[in-house]
Amino acid sequence: MPRSSISKRFGLVVRSFRIRSGLSQETLAERAGLHPSYVSMVERGTRNATLDVAERIASALQTSLKELITACEGLTVEGTGA
Amino acid sequence: MPRSSISKRFGLVVRSFRIRSGLSQETLAERAGLHPSYVSMVERGTRNATLDVAERIASALQTSLKELITACEGLTVEGTGA
Repeated sequence: MPRSSISKRFGLVVRSFRIRSGLSQETLAERAGLHPSYVSMVERGTRNATLDVAERIASALQTSLKELITACEGLTVEGTGA
Repeated sequence: MPRSSISKRFGLVVRSFRIRSGLSQETLAERAGLHPSYVSMVERGTRNATLDVAERIASALQTSLKELITACEGLTVEGTGA
């Protein structure tokens, strides 16, 4: 199975952490100072977040960028390709 | 001491890993498929890399994005502020 792009993997991890925290995309966006549609694009992997935005999202999820990136490592996403 | 921006910290970490690997900015850029001036800006923290670019740089340094981000955590940079 090919390894998916970091954007795709990061998006899945953000969604997973967000749902686990019981937050809506709107709440996460507000906490991170981002537009809800931007958060939606990041979660779908259609927007390649900068390190700055990625760190703000991590902070809004009350975790660290390191935690999110660690969760991305080795993650494979079926069917989405590279 | 204020915590510096992730861009600044990431740049310092990339420079440190690159020098430790005995690579020039040009060689790192070539390996990562980036322009040398772009790598220079990333190292100086004046360019906020995307996760995609950050991962390509990690790969060119024969390490993982997780390693680079871990090295960024807790790093403080004197005098540069947030």
